Amino acid sequence: MTTTTLPDAGTAYERKPATYNATLTQVGRGTPMGELLRRYWHPIGVSADASEVPRKVRALGEDLILFRDRQGRPGLLYPHCAHRGTSLYYGRVEDGGIRCCYHGWLFDVQGHCTDQPCEPQGGLSRDRIRQPWYPVEERYGLIFAYMGPPDRKPVLPRYAALENLAQGEFIEANDQSIGGGGPQVIPCNWLQHFENVVDPFHVAILHSSFSGTQFVPQMGVMPEVTFDYTDAGVSATAVRRLDDGKTLRRVGEAALPTLRVIPSPRLAHYGTVESLGWVLPIDDTSFRIYTAGRVRRAGDIARSRSRMNGKLWEELTEEEHQRMPGDYEAQVSQGPIAWHSEENLATSDRGLVLLRRMFKQQLDIVAAGGDPIGVSFDPDAPPIVFAAGNFLE
Amino acid sequence: MTTTTLPDAGTAYERKPATYNATLTQVGRGTPMGELLRRYWHPIGVSADASEVPRKVRALGEDLILFRDRQGRPGLLYPHCAHRGTSLYYGRVEDGGIRCCYHGWLFDVQGHCTDQPCEPQGGLSRDRIRQPWYPVEERYGLIFAYMGPPDRKPVLPRYAALENLAQGEFIEANDQSIGGGGPQVIPCNWLQHFENVVDPFHVAILHSSFSGTQFVPQMGVMPEVTFDYTDAGVSATAVRRLDDGKTLRRVGEAALPTLRVIPSPRLAHYGTVESLGWVLPIDDTSFRIYTAGRVRRAGDIARSRSRMNGKLWEELTEEEHQRMPGDYEAQVSQGPIAWHSEENLATSDRGLVLLRRMFKQQLDIVAAGGDPIGVSFDPDAPPIVFAAGNFLE
Amino acid sequence: MTTTTLPDAGTAYERKPATYNATLTQVGRGTPMGELLRRYWHPIGVSADASEVPRKVRALGEDLILFRDRQGRPGLLYPHCAHRGTSLYYGRVEDGGIRCCYHGWLFDVQGHCTDQPCEPQGGLSRDRIRQPWYPVEERYGLIFAYMGPPDRKPVLPRYAALENLAQGEFIEANDQSIGGGGPQVIPCNWLQHFENVVDPFHVAILHSSFSGTQFVPQMGVMPEVTFDYTDAGVSATAVRRLDDGKTLRRVGEAALPTLRVIPSPRLAHYGTVESLGWVLPIDDTSFRIYTAGRVRRAGDIARSRSRMNGKLWEELTEEEHQRMPGDYEAQVSQGPIAWHSEENLATSDRGLVLLRRMFKQQLDIVAAGGDPIGVSFDPDAPPIVFAAGNFLE
Repeated sequence: MTTTTLPDAGTAYERKPATYNATLTQVGRGTPMGELLRRYWHPIGVSADASEVPRKVRALGEDLILFRDRQGRPGLLYPHCAHRGTSLYYGRVEDGGIRCCYHGWLFDVQGHCTDQPCEPQGGLSRDRIRQPWYPVEERYGLIFAYMGPPDRKPVLPRYAALENLAQGEFIEANDQSIGGGGPQVIPCNWLQHFENVVDPFHVAILHSSFSGTQFVPQMGVMPEVTFDYTDAGVSATAVRRLDDGKTLRRVGEAALPTLRVIPSPRLAHYGTVESLGWVLPIDDTSFRIYTAGRVRRAGDIARSRSRMNGKLWEELTEEEHQRMPGDYEAQVSQGPIAWHSEENLATSDRGLVLLRRMFKQQLDIVAAGGDPIGVSFDPDAPPIVFAAGNFLE
Repeated sequence: MTTTTLPDAGTAYERKPATYNATLTQVGRGTPMGELLRRYWHPIGVSADASEVPRKVRALGEDLILFRDRQGRPGLLYPHCAHRGTSLYYGRVEDGGIRCCYHGWLFDVQGHCTDQPCEPQGGLSRDRIRQPWYPVEERYGLIFAYMGPPDRKPVLPRYAALENLAQGEFIEANDQSIGGGGPQVIPCNWLQHFENVVDPFHVAILHSSFSGTQFVPQMGVMPEVTFDYTDAGVSATAVRRLDDGKTLRRVGEAALPTLRVIPSPRLAHYGTVESLGWVLPIDDTSFRIYTAGRVRRAGDIARSRSRMNGKLWEELTEEEHQRMPGDYEAQVSQGPIAWHSEENLATSDRGLVLLRRMFKQQLDIVAAGGDPIGVSFDPDAPPIVFAAGNFLE
Repeated sequence: MTTTTLPDAGTAYERKPATYNATLTQVGRGTPMGELLRRYWHPIGVSADASEVPRKVRALGEDLILFRDRQGRPGLLYPHCAHRGTSLYYGRVEDGGIRCCYHGWLFDVQGHCTDQPCEPQGGLSRDRIRQPWYPVEERYGLIFAYMGPPDRKPVLPRYAALENLAQGEFIEANDQSIGGGGPQVIPCNWLQHFENVVDPFHVAILHSSFSGTQFVPQMGVMPEVTFDYTDAGVSATAVRRLDDGKTLRRVGEAALPTLRVIPSPRLAHYGTVESLGWVLPIDDTSFRIYTAGRVRRAGDIARSRSRMNGKLWEELTEEEHQRMPGDYEAQVSQGPIAWHSEENLATSDRGLVLLRRMFKQQLDIVAAGGDPIGVSFDPDAPPIVFAAGNFLE
């Protein structure tokens, strides 16, 4: 039997209502962060997702339909047909676009209406109709969309890490939310994950001492960490003194708006970062991650998904999730949107402090009519180079 | 790789917030359309639904309990017992009505309280209690309820199509939402379906060119259509020139408030319409259809449910729904309530334009204290005759 | 065919919007009843629920984590770690408390932060951190929590019925919501059940005439009932004249805030009450019951769960639930929170009238800064004695 003898200070009875920072987290059109995010290209599928079978896509809180016309062009349209609102998910893909099932209006990948078969002469006024659409481009096996103001559309960036291939290497894309520690769609706000990118300390606890050795033993050494601003975001340099006298210097970066630039925590190779991960906010309370990387064997990226005792996340029992938590459990359990009012940030949280500060600066720039960090309108801009990697010294 | 070179006009970034017409769609008590609908009788079950086993019914946004006392009288009561609120779904049916399970209060089919067994002498004040109830009548194998103001209760109409039987014919009722293209309960606003009744053009696209021949090949011919007001609603006359030189004249009607007067699209017989369908708004975002028709074999109406490749709707895979959409897919995908602000109506939509106009006129009449079109207070009124049918000429 | 010929009075068309009494039913922090309830100890688990595997608990609308440190002390903490909000459900139990999985902060059972392993020297400022917690005590096989203002914490009461054991008796605890007639978590407001405690009339209808003999034949006799205020709540004395000329006097009590003091309805023994049941409001629309009682065989309390035709509640079909309703069906079907505005209370409802009146008096006392009925700050107070029991006279 337990009897409380100390004074009962600090009980949960006295806590204040919790709040979250809506400005930093909400992604809808018209919200501050939603508008900042819309100044960049975001991947909304792998190339195979665009096919003759229309596919539902949700990005930044918007529902859209992705397809590929018979000329090979991907299209991304607002779901509800401009005529009467039937979803183009039930549309039929043709040479010239997608045709609504209800009355047959046909739209091309840019939303032009090119046929109205129930109207005289195929629709004398059809040119006045435009199905809402978004520009898309394909690169690195992914389909990127630009969902922002048309006159601010930047060029789709290239990255040195995905352009400079060694002999035998090729680029592979993946949609399994590698690095998220869970299923494809992760049910919490994207920022909870993105802040984790500049949080190297949790590697020594969550991924090493807590749930066994999730990666490799070296990762369990508590690092000395330096945080810095970069040209595109915030980097964390974690230095570990290893038993053999060598030093492991590991550099990761969170590049705005949502790019994970994280070298492999499995240390299969040393050197510069091999893959990039784009965190796509699906809406305010879910996200997913698209990855592209240099590989030598097909499936290498899928094989890098975390396992606990040899099991993938979806194979674990509830008790195993509880006893061997990973990024999914740590971040999703913060809540659909973490209660920022209840945080007690410490020195080890300096990475996310810098990242939030940079986001706020960029929100101000966009609110003032400017273009945020990292966007370029120069189609001849050189590929972006990151300092991230694992270096043994 | 696709590069957008045209100017990016009309993207989804610029679209306005979508809205729907609440006045035309909402069915709750006190809403304009809810009050108009409440001036008519609506079917709320087939006769067999009223039995000694109380049954949950939902109509016009109201939850109710349907039962049949041991004298054979159907009753339709508010679910929560007037005493303490326990649901009469758990009540026991007796000769004189239904008895609440909790403390045994007994109510007849008109809500009178006739016993309170825990009270002295069975309840000295029980006459002051009235369980909320609605009048019901049975006809054509259906149970109709009147849920409107008591002093405006019209007579339950008779229809010539269901009164004048040929030798060997009888009336069969059905609750499978025949014509809805899906399950019994269809998860979208009733008006989306009811407008489809005066939309003969979609037959040539959705039901013929798109998903193969859902009905018969003749239906695939694009018709010439005339729309007209009738005594009770709006009719659509679709004329098709057939290959053999004959003319198929097909007349369908949407009769207020929710009656489908649609001849068989399978053309099994020519002549006047053989069945009627009542669209019951369950609430703002779901509906079902009750049907009654002249048949020669039991089960004929059930056999008229649509099939795709021989399969009923619930037997199709998601991919088959997508590749062979029908009315369910076309209408439900418009959304729980279609976004009327985003519509672009064309000449082929004239039927629904007339129908909405007529609804608005009737809303004004009811708001001004009048009785809407089609109601009659004359118990000797002759059966209503419709012009609908398939005619080969 | 049924035709309504009487005037259509009292139809459901005319009923008013229903409301419930929020003051009496809502349990959240800051609500009147929520604050009254928080002046008492409530069981939030059986002793075995506090273990090295953290367990989610919900009580009075608050989510909490229950665990037991390796020194055997139960702890009840706010789920979200004071550092960054990760749930302590994924924490690891150690000697000194529970450690968060994300960055390893360690908290003792009173919320003190005793380690921050990612911070220099284990956290130089960690003493400023307090994880919100609640005091707990174990008694009668249950874990009780005090969730109210710290300076008003009463002593955890003792009860004569559970202190004075006969030879061979011992105390057994149970978390199956014995007396609720259904599953462990019952989806309606707690007051619907608690009012049932002082409603002996329903025993003769619901439990006897309606669903067969749920208990014993004597219970089917309609009793003469007297209701009284007691030192802690309201008692109901039900007197039944039995066939053999004897008199069964059965006394039950609802003791504030939520204690069921109900002698066995199976009459296995005569004499004073053998078990107590604590109704725990999980939130506004669900509750559960913890029981502790004197038994002679392990499992005696679990064996007292109601059965219908030999089946437990979860083994019944929907039709059996409908034909053989019990407390669960009667109370849950009143709605998530019963519509008090629609009640028509009668003389047989006098018990709940008294109970509501007493609750309102106590709400006023608490609002005025006083301590409510039944709380004691005297650690040497004698066990509480109840008059409840089954007495054959």
